[in-house]
Amino acid sequence: MKAQIITIGDEILIGQILDTNSAWIAQQLNMSGVRVAEMRSVSDTREAILEALKAGQSADLVLLTGGLGPTKDDITKKVLAEFLGVELAFHEATYNRIAAYFEKRSFTLTPAHREQCYMPANAEILLNDMGTAPGMWMQKDNTIYVSMPGVPYEMKHLVSERVLPRLRNNAKLRPIVHRTILTAGTGESVIAQRLENFEESLPDFIKLAYLPNLGIVRLRLTATGDDETALNQILDEKKAEIHTLIPEFVFGEETETLEEVLGRILKEKGAMLGTAESCTGGYIAHKITSIPGSSAYFGGSVVAYSNQLKTNLLNVNSETLKAHGAVSEETVREMVTGALDTLGVDYAIAVSGIAGPDGGTPDKPVGTIWTAVGSRQEIITKKLTLTKYRMRNIQLTSNLTLNLLRKFVTRDS
Amino acid sequence: MKAQIITIGDEILIGQILDTNSAWIAQQLNMSGVRVAEMRSVSDTREAILEALKAGQSADLVLLTGGLGPTKDDITKKVLAEFLGVELAFHEATYNRIAAYFEKRSFTLTPAHREQCYMPANAEILLNDMGTAPGMWMQKDNTIYVSMPGVPYEMKHLVSERVLPRLRNNAKLRPIVHRTILTAGTGESVIAQRLENFEESLPDFIKLAYLPNLGIVRLRLTATGDDETALNQILDEKKAEIHTLIPEFVFGEETETLEEVLGRILKEKGAMLGTAESCTGGYIAHKITSIPGSSAYFGGSVVAYSNQLKTNLLNVNSETLKAHGAVSEETVREMVTGALDTLGVDYAIAVSGIAGPDGGTPDKPVGTIWTAVGSRQEIITKKLTLTKYRMRNIQLTSNLTLNLLRKFVTRDS
Repeated sequence: MKAQIITIGDEILIGQILDTNSAWIAQQLNMSGVRVAEMRSVSDTREAILEALKAGQSADLVLLTGGLGPTKDDITKKVLAEFLGVELAFHEATYNRIAAYFEKRSFTLTPAHREQCYMPANAEILLNDMGTAPGMWMQKDNTIYVSMPGVPYEMKHLVSERVLPRLRNNAKLRPIVHRTILTAGTGESVIAQRLENFEESLPDFIKLAYLPNLGIVRLRLTATGDDETALNQILDEKKAEIHTLIPEFVFGEETETLEEVLGRILKEKGAMLGTAESCTGGYIAHKITSIPGSSAYFGGSVVAYSNQLKTNLLNVNSETLKAHGAVSEETVREMVTGALDTLGVDYAIAVSGIAGPDGGTPDKPVGTIWTAVGSRQEIITKKLTLTKYRMRNIQLTSNLTLNLLRKFVTRDS
Repeated sequence: MKAQIITIGDEILIGQILDTNSAWIAQQLNMSGVRVAEMRSVSDTREAILEALKAGQSADLVLLTGGLGPTKDDITKKVLAEFLGVELAFHEATYNRIAAYFEKRSFTLTPAHREQCYMPANAEILLNDMGTAPGMWMQKDNTIYVSMPGVPYEMKHLVSERVLPRLRNNAKLRPIVHRTILTAGTGESVIAQRLENFEESLPDFIKLAYLPNLGIVRLRLTATGDDETALNQILDEKKAEIHTLIPEFVFGEETETLEEVLGRILKEKGAMLGTAESCTGGYIAHKITSIPGSSAYFGGSVVAYSNQLKTNLLNVNSETLKAHGAVSEETVREMVTGALDTLGVDYAIAVSGIAGPDGGTPDKPVGTIWTAVGSRQEIITKKLTLTKYRMRNIQLTSNLTLNLLRKFVTRDS
């Protein structure tokens, strides 16, 4: 079964609103075995909507969001009726529902609300418990058209409670199954090389995609077929194969993040973590504390931007700073020891570097960053040579260092 | 000038990745006077890409993102060459650039990198300083096609540095001029009310848009016409008028950020800032240190996630914590004093709250956050009652507190 998602409204086309609806709908359809062949955002003009509806005829299912509000620029229903070759008919039950809803809240009904109750005559009404505009389920030739309001929680309610249950009875649904493997510590091309034979041996109905971002490469396996159980089984096998081919890079699966995985490991060990950050300026602490419940394994952080604080709060020897500089293996090593003491934690991360865009020297150019992770037993250090872009350096350092700690803690157990 | 944006890649169609690229590109094009007529996300198959390219022929400009990586599923270039009726040609300069980049970092070049250097023969290469895959600028009949990698920071770099400058020379573009005024400390509706008469008096060729985001409302004036000098002059006048109408909310202009403005003020005063963060977990420090040169006015931060660190590092009285709790006016007040001492700074920010999604009580529900800003002379506090969403609470708190400090420091002088 093939679907098309159409989002109607100029606010998306001028970039004022991010279209989060389409991604959410796509996730839901995918999990139900509906393949989304295309997403479109179009202007709320007759011509643009008609063209999108026509293109949708090659799909089995067309989901439209937006353009159902009571304001003048919302012409979706008129265009739908024209496209389906039917009239707009007044839907009494919907009007009564809106009237009751308004009475209960002492709101005043306007003529625009009556206007809202005209629907294409052949539409099946999908009751919207979350707002005034109902969904509509229509058919033309072999394609089902579903129109829903663009307000995210109303749309989600209609998809979950009205659309998906109806789709599950549809015989055309062909199973589609995914597995995502998360890696860190190397680039896309190295992984591609290591998986070359594996990839070539994949049957036609299985695809492998690489999704790299800021030091993390996600590998996604997708299989399509008739027997969902068989697809799940073979993808589990293929996933396990990837695990054995690149074990040193895999850190998780599906939608997990590095900081979630690390948090889980620390929680299992009952260990506390702290960070001592210079050039990352608190970003690593932020990433860790963005996870709900992180207080169970995160004690805190010293962001020692000045050398004075490195000495005062992290006990970095001023001689070390003088001899090797703040951006040095020696300094981050002492920062780890200092953080373990000052923060009273079991593991610590330390970072000191030149994030840029200024501050580089011939010896230590912008992008030179020393990181260290360790415990009271051992400290390991790593020099990173990154880019000249400040935010990118901060984000990359964060991911690379969190991964370094993950490996350190895992090996440690 | 009419544009179409095409995003290529199955990861968007299965909803695994949110397409933020299209919205960003649309914003940039709009600001340059280019109207985006449609956005599409299509699968990385020959048929889907070809169909989208053909539909793009009705536009003046087609921007494609995605599908340029060194892995096997990236077929954009092959399809582009087919569509343009040209061969793929090896681009020596690009290969040499990648090879040099890799050599510098002691990475290993793989055959896939060589593969990446084949481009449609008639493409003008757009140098990508942020990654290995360059952008491509092509023409067929009256339509310009630009292909870029889908990695957001690479795409943004190419649009800003390569694509927009080329477009500005295009004769079809009618002058369009913008002014952006940045406000914080109140909502969109209060500002709209204060600017009601101003807005009604605007001539037809000037539009005012409200762009609210995370406690900051940007006001954007846009004027279209034929005489760019005249447009600039009238917008400068209108901008000055807004400044006089809502002076207490305006903090900056154009693309400035709150943390940049604050940094400039602190630098001018020769004052040092530090933060004591609990629920924001280092995010405020991160925001401040994301600005180049922030070491001139930022000393550092104590992220005291545990109560123990609040006592040990920020000298918060354990009696205060017992009597009022960590999320209280009394605690953030003591955190400010502690931060001033421990970090040796002139101004400090302190935050303690329940970011959620768990941890709320009937007394202090999720979203209850106490903030304080102060110096050795005075401390002011503010209770925030925010949402149930963790990241949103962290981001909102950060902006609201930075603005609180900005007003405190400004008033102070």
